[in-house]
Amino acid sequence: MNYYIIFFVLGWVMCFEGVFLLLPSFTAVFYNEMDAGIPFMVTALVSALIGFVITRIKPKHKHFYAREGFVICALTWFIISLIGAIPLSCSGYFNSYIDALFEIVSGFTTTGSSVLTDLTGLPHCILIWRSFSHWVGGMGVLVFILAVLPLFGGQDMQILKAESPGPSVGKLVPNVKKTASYLYKIYIAITVIQFIVMLATGMDVFNALCITFGTAGTGGFGVNNSSCGNYTFTQQVIITVFMMLFGVNFNFYFYIIKGKFKDAFSIEEVRWYIGVYAVAVTVIVLNIMGNANALSTNVKDAAFSVASVMTTTGYATADFDKWPMFSRCILITVMYMGACAGSTGGGMKVSRIVIYLKSLKKELSCMIHQKSVKIIKMDGKPVGHTVIRNANVFLVSYVILFFTSFLIVTLDNFDFETSFTAIVATLNNIGPGLGMVGPSGNFAAFSDRTKLVLIFDMLAGRLEIFPMLLLLYPRTWGRK
Amino acid sequence: MNYYIIFFVLGWVMCFEGVFLLLPSFTAVFYNEMDAGIPFMVTALVSALIGFVITRIKPKHKHFYAREGFVICALTWFIISLIGAIPLSCSGYFNSYIDALFEIVSGFTTTGSSVLTDLTGLPHCILIWRSFSHWVGGMGVLVFILAVLPLFGGQDMQILKAESPGPSVGKLVPNVKKTASYLYKIYIAITVIQFIVMLATGMDVFNALCITFGTAGTGGFGVNNSSCGNYTFTQQVIITVFMMLFGVNFNFYFYIIKGKFKDAFSIEEVRWYIGVYAVAVTVIVLNIMGNANALSTNVKDAAFSVASVMTTTGYATADFDKWPMFSRCILITVMYMGACAGSTGGGMKVSRIVIYLKSLKKELSCMIHQKSVKIIKMDGKPVGHTVIRNANVFLVSYVILFFTSFLIVTLDNFDFETSFTAIVATLNNIGPGLGMVGPSGNFAAFSDRTKLVLIFDMLAGRLEIFPMLLLLYPRTWGRK
Repeated sequence: MNYYIIFFVLGWVMCFEGVFLLLPSFTAVFYNEMDAGIPFMVTALVSALIGFVITRIKPKHKHFYAREGFVICALTWFIISLIGAIPLSCSGYFNSYIDALFEIVSGFTTTGSSVLTDLTGLPHCILIWRSFSHWVGGMGVLVFILAVLPLFGGQDMQILKAESPGPSVGKLVPNVKKTASYLYKIYIAITVIQFIVMLATGMDVFNALCITFGTAGTGGFGVNNSSCGNYTFTQQVIITVFMMLFGVNFNFYFYIIKGKFKDAFSIEEVRWYIGVYAVAVTVIVLNIMGNANALSTNVKDAAFSVASVMTTTGYATADFDKWPMFSRCILITVMYMGACAGSTGGGMKVSRIVIYLKSLKKELSCMIHQKSVKIIKMDGKPVGHTVIRNANVFLVSYVILFFTSFLIVTLDNFDFETSFTAIVATLNNIGPGLGMVGPSGNFAAFSDRTKLVLIFDMLAGRLEIFPMLLLLYPRTWGRK
Repeated sequence: MNYYIIFFVLGWVMCFEGVFLLLPSFTAVFYNEMDAGIPFMVTALVSALIGFVITRIKPKHKHFYAREGFVICALTWFIISLIGAIPLSCSGYFNSYIDALFEIVSGFTTTGSSVLTDLTGLPHCILIWRSFSHWVGGMGVLVFILAVLPLFGGQDMQILKAESPGPSVGKLVPNVKKTASYLYKIYIAITVIQFIVMLATGMDVFNALCITFGTAGTGGFGVNNSSCGNYTFTQQVIITVFMMLFGVNFNFYFYIIKGKFKDAFSIEEVRWYIGVYAVAVTVIVLNIMGNANALSTNVKDAAFSVASVMTTTGYATADFDKWPMFSRCILITVMYMGACAGSTGGGMKVSRIVIYLKSLKKELSCMIHQKSVKIIKMDGKPVGHTVIRNANVFLVSYVILFFTSFLIVTLDNFDFETSFTAIVATLNNIGPGLGMVGPSGNFAAFSDRTKLVLIFDMLAGRLEIFPMLLLLYPRTWGRK
């Protein structure tokens, strides 16, 4: 294990966190919220300073392998969360450091689950830090650093792989730095467009900024208690569209930019993504049609909620916890599925589900014709054995992690629905679950033990489990 | 597709069902319950007659391949259920044919979920048919036929594989007929021992017979409303022991009989099975210790409930639905795990879980040392690629089937816990779930649509999903 390179990268992470913390610091100055603002400034300064000192210790050599990549990735997310929670904890608006940590992990992992019971009167600097953490976490901290700094001699692919969601993320262009920078340029561009559109609908700058950050990172922290419930019909529709856009595999936009429209629209994953979305919305609209609302409201609410849950954003307009059980279970199902690989969304990723379905079909085929050799294809290209095995083991580790968490969370003795969906919501980085943790509820009532488990689950969900498991695997830390 | 051979085997299945139906018929005569008994006799006669006629149509050739094996297996279970439900339906104790079908599928698949709200006053012939169906289904109808009749020229392995639970069931001895007959001899031997022991505790013959059938098949239908709650402490302990014995991989007994004690005790699956059982019981005892009962009662109840749920039998002494959420979730977890492969128990099977854990460890290892080649071993022997792939696809199809069923069941709009555990209980062939379908509840209130879904799930659970899925796969029915 090359410990030097790990420290070196973590030093840079701390520097960047100092920079990120400037946004809430300036916000505090702008809104004259010095009580809540000073912790942000101090943390920014200290984090950047310590980081700067660490980066002066140059690693002996820059060679590193997969395990260093995974460890760097996992530790990065720990560090940014541990530091990012400090100003929240000092603000006095959180009951404990664990609560603050829960909130900021929920932010960075773009989960959007909250321990806050009431957002009224919360300083702007805290609100914007919550929302900004979504944006930073959405495309990934390390991807950002890779895009800005030429740190390693071309060996950074491991890090990009470990931090980018989904099984099929590859290099868009041969150069990793360029790939990272493309990803961020697309990300920034769509973010800016949404921000402008939100302003055009008459939304104030602060709301527009926060909502855009939350949508872009598919996070879900709102700035009002009603989440998106008090926005206009048009604003809600626009947010729906952008949630869906940020859930698309970014390869799609890359092809569009390069003028390869045929390639873009033949991405199987994107077509499945849109197909599943359309079916889910239609079925829910039919299921809730009997209620008192107008059809247009129902369509809008269903479209919004499915987009919110499928992209794992977690914004709410309607309290879907009051919908019939069937509609709620459709939401749970698309929660599991999640958005596209290579997007900012969470969940299992559509491409994994497609791989699962195809391998099931292959297995059935093999049972009928025992000697036939079948190859699983995706976008016309064969899917490698390693990718399939990895997807399978992912499901295994997902199920194991789920049950382990479930067992620990049930020690709090809340009802089945609450315990179960609390884990679904955090492990898939969605935000709200059902029952006590439904769209109008929150995670405050859980014990610290449960909160720590859910923090682990949020990180595991964002990093697709393996980096977190490797941290717990003794052989990771061995010499060879 | 060799349709002739399928008809031929199904003919034999109908003959044997006629023979099986003699037990309730004689019981009806013995207890003078002719109203409920005549449907049994008529069905027995008609089934045997039609079956006999069909077996006269000799198939042109006896060649058949995997897909015929799977289709025979799936259709056999449909046929025995459809016929076995007729006398129940005619008895007037069931609201509809679907209810009767649910009950007998639950019987044959050794699930033990019931639509009956009250067992008081039910004729003995119906009670014994329910319990006997567990015994018949436990080791498998086709395995029984294979043990008795030399039907095919040594190509019957496919059928044995399709009907026997678990990933690793192979031939105990090179000859399939001998393997099947060994399995049934062991099965009958332990059944007889339990029956004698139950009688020795002072239980009456009818109760002892029914309870033994239910334990042997790991089924779970009782003969009283309180399941096993009104039996003595000693009787409950004995049932616990036998539930666990029937959940052991039958290879274990085979080795014991052959005097290969070292081989027997080195079966990894059996050691995991006992280990998980011990841990689960201990943890639950610690968790429920605060209640009013004596420690010995708590230990007995925990030992009984975990054995009942882990072997997927489904008998109850205590109403575990009233236990703390944590204990209930331990039960749900061992429900999923299930018993050993090659036993009469259901669930995912311990050996699959072990394969999953080992493949997860392998994947983590591969991530650390990318070039290392790791082989998964079980009982010291390498596990084949096909077995692992099959286990992985099993998990995939399990999850897909689970969610599909879940969505349809939630259309009934019962609460989350009820809908969720109704599927867990049927798909894993356990019997009781939690909430409305808890140990003191039943499945009567569900709609026919839901009951049909749960019938499918019970059959899928017993046959390990693939044969049922193949029935729905169009290419199964193609010419080539």
